[in-house]
Amino acid sequence: MRPDFERNGGLIRVIAQDAVTYEVLMDAFMSEEAFDETMRTGRVVYYSRSRMRIWRKGEESGHVQLVRSIRINCNRDALLILVEQVGLAACHDGYRSCYYREITDDGWKVISERVFDPQVVYGKKGT
Amino acid sequence: MRPDFERNGGLIRVIAQDAVTYEVLMDAFMSEEAFDETMRTGRVVYYSRSRMRIWRKGEESGHVQLVRSIRINCNRDALLILVEQVGLAACHDGYRSCYYREITDDGWKVISERVFDPQVVYGKKGT
Repeated sequence: MRPDFERNGGLIRVIAQDAVTYEVLMDAFMSEEAFDETMRTGRVVYYSRSRMRIWRKGEESGHVQLVRSIRINCNRDALLILVEQVGLAACHDGYRSCYYREITDDGWKVISERVFDPQVVYGKKGT
Repeated sequence: MRPDFERNGGLIRVIAQDAVTYEVLMDAFMSEEAFDETMRTGRVVYYSRSRMRIWRKGEESGHVQLVRSIRINCNRDALLILVEQVGLAACHDGYRSCYYREITDDGWKVISERVFDPQVVYGKKGT
């Protein structure tokens, strides 16, 4: 059984969750090529829709994700990957998780600490 | 600040995570209308792409999701919602989580117990 890449124009959704703390770190997409490389290498590879190419997570920052477990959803069009997040942060804004803001009665509030300065890690902007 | 509904044709991605165990239960989509109703009622409302309409989670099964916390990602095009899952299961296949299969050397293997029989809950097939 393979993920169903046909259902959504060649891409599947992927959620990356910390294998130890269960924190949801990020979500993104995979093409079939990205999926196959992830399976082969044990490092998470996504597909960047904005850059329209394979995106080896951490290729600029060094913050790679090592695969600990891969799960598939009922519809076979999305994966949940439990990962070991190398280098503290998954988010290019410098937070461990991309979900670093929570809604409150006073609007969205940052609930995590920044663990790196994106300008230092990427120069301008990165992955 | 609102989620960015423009970026992906009117829909945002939504991950539902158990607020107590941190298990990822499912992921789906929300339209602006679904988001607003979720915010107003405290019950998770999705948008069903196959049925092309608002989908009040649990409307058939009774397995509603009560909002405990809503988080937004760096790009503002996805939400992580911590929920109280009423009625044991989020998945229409009868498992607590839609991610009930894990890849092994022998292929995909079911790693969770079925907590209800879909045929009893839905008749044929449901949400």
